[in-house]
Amino acid sequence: MNNVLAVDIGGTHFRTGLFDEQGRRLLILEGDTDRQAGREWMLEQLGRRCRDLIAQTDAPVKACGLSFGGPVDYMRQSVTSVHSAGWEGFELGKWMEQSLGIPCALDNDANAGALGEYRFGAGRGAKSMVYITISTGIGSGLVYEGKLIRGKDCVAGEIGHIPVSDSGARCSCGGRGCLESFSSGGAIEMRAREWAQRRPEHVARLIELSGGGEITAKGLMLAAAEGDMVATHILRETTRWLARGLLMVIRILNPDIIVLGGGVAQSGALLLDTIHGFLEELASPTIHYSTEIATAALGNYSPLYGAAAMAMTMDKPT
Amino acid sequence: MNNVLAVDIGGTHFRTGLFDEQGRRLLILEGDTDRQAGREWMLEQLGRRCRDLIAQTDAPVKACGLSFGGPVDYMRQSVTSVHSAGWEGFELGKWMEQSLGIPCALDNDANAGALGEYRFGAGRGAKSMVYITISTGIGSGLVYEGKLIRGKDCVAGEIGHIPVSDSGARCSCGGRGCLESFSSGGAIEMRAREWAQRRPEHVARLIELSGGGEITAKGLMLAAAEGDMVATHILRETTRWLARGLLMVIRILNPDIIVLGGGVAQSGALLLDTIHGFLEELASPTIHYSTEIATAALGNYSPLYGAAAMAMTMDKPT
Repeated sequence: MNNVLAVDIGGTHFRTGLFDEQGRRLLILEGDTDRQAGREWMLEQLGRRCRDLIAQTDAPVKACGLSFGGPVDYMRQSVTSVHSAGWEGFELGKWMEQSLGIPCALDNDANAGALGEYRFGAGRGAKSMVYITISTGIGSGLVYEGKLIRGKDCVAGEIGHIPVSDSGARCSCGGRGCLESFSSGGAIEMRAREWAQRRPEHVARLIELSGGGEITAKGLMLAAAEGDMVATHILRETTRWLARGLLMVIRILNPDIIVLGGGVAQSGALLLDTIHGFLEELASPTIHYSTEIATAALGNYSPLYGAAAMAMTMDKPT
Repeated sequence: MNNVLAVDIGGTHFRTGLFDEQGRRLLILEGDTDRQAGREWMLEQLGRRCRDLIAQTDAPVKACGLSFGGPVDYMRQSVTSVHSAGWEGFELGKWMEQSLGIPCALDNDANAGALGEYRFGAGRGAKSMVYITISTGIGSGLVYEGKLIRGKDCVAGEIGHIPVSDSGARCSCGGRGCLESFSSGGAIEMRAREWAQRRPEHVARLIELSGGGEITAKGLMLAAAEGDMVATHILRETTRWLARGLLMVIRILNPDIIVLGGGVAQSGALLLDTIHGFLEELASPTIHYSTEIATAALGNYSPLYGAAAMAMTMDKPT
């Protein structure tokens, strides 16, 4: 019986895990990402924890899967993130192989999360699944008959950068009117800040539930669950755009299931109910579909489980 | 060496063809669809022509593929069109099997056209292809690794009914703001009629190129190619929405190639140049893609060739 290692590197947390070949987690180590500390610090943390995990098991550890929370060049198995200092162009897959002495595969967290939910989460048994992660930005991964659809240039699933409007704030990608600039956690927080500036008397509860400082998407979702007026307003505004994005996915792919992951999706039923209401409004009365919409069964751990799945199959460019 | 039959039933024309197993057409018979004459007339035409084609060859004819220019229930191999009197619920596949005594497979013209272009046209050699047919309406078919992606409810590829705007005319599907109501041949003709009512002094050339009666999408494309002001204006207006739809497909699937078929796409370079201009405007400067956009290599014959491909593989529900 072989085991595998899984690594999930995110902007706020990172995780390393030991899994058996059935995808059962044997041990998970968690840490907070210190963005100021840079790449070398992170690599040192990862290397040490992975070696610790290997030392904890008598079974051979045959491979390691890596999920990176930012742009990845899959073909080169390298990070392309320009937002995290020191990471751009770094061949993380190769570095990890040399550090651990076992085969390693790298992908972005949207694809890893998609694989995780497909193999071990809400997408089990589906023929086709679209995983959409909604946190600071919006990413997605497409699984069809067990495999990721990556696209010609490995930019399939860039649902966050679908053009949904001619207006709207400029997006981080340089475009305008992207879904991400209307429906992401970042968009929610920007709308909350605008409210706080214009109508500070209405946002006391949002600030409280966000921990007292800047209003966070998480705090806003909590306030919306309580029925807070401003939070409900912002949630509905952003979710209507999200529903339009989901309907585009349904119209184009009509998948078995769309799985929503990332921080914003943790609000669960509140988000799903709001989405379904808007889909009723937007959808055609004559084109029937039964695509299921669900939240991630593995919560924040979808990418880590996906990294384990990558380690099991070692499906990577050669 | 076996041969196959192919049938393409459209709203204005119908075609029957005899193909060899390499997809070479041996003989094609064409006819004009008489909408008033109804279903029985059409069936009589098809049956007779198919039997004529079978009689023309010494090689065994092993199967027949059928493309229908309207909604089809693929799982039940029946027509679901409500627009063509007498066709709704008709099990065309079974009828043809009983009439000809050979296995028959039925699909809609968007899926058939996609298969035709993938096997014998502009999509040859691609891993992933999206075929979009733009005529009175907008339909599409997705081919991935040689097979159609039909979706959970067989409504994948309903790109014509992507919601692109909150406003706009009510669509034939009952929805509002569908791409089809902005970018189809029907939408082009509706815009031309509006111009003709408001500014009749500007549409003389459009009417002339449309044959003297109602302005047609075909006449408008001819006028646009001459630089006619109104035609150019309408073409740019409708193509900008189409480009947005194409960018959605690229963002979600990043296919190797998007093939544009149907009457509107026959305008070729003029349409492609206009699309590329708007894609430059709409696309992000940082998310690079190399998805090719081309017009159908088989022109109006994509669905007929696709029907031949269906007959060769006999890939249908059992």
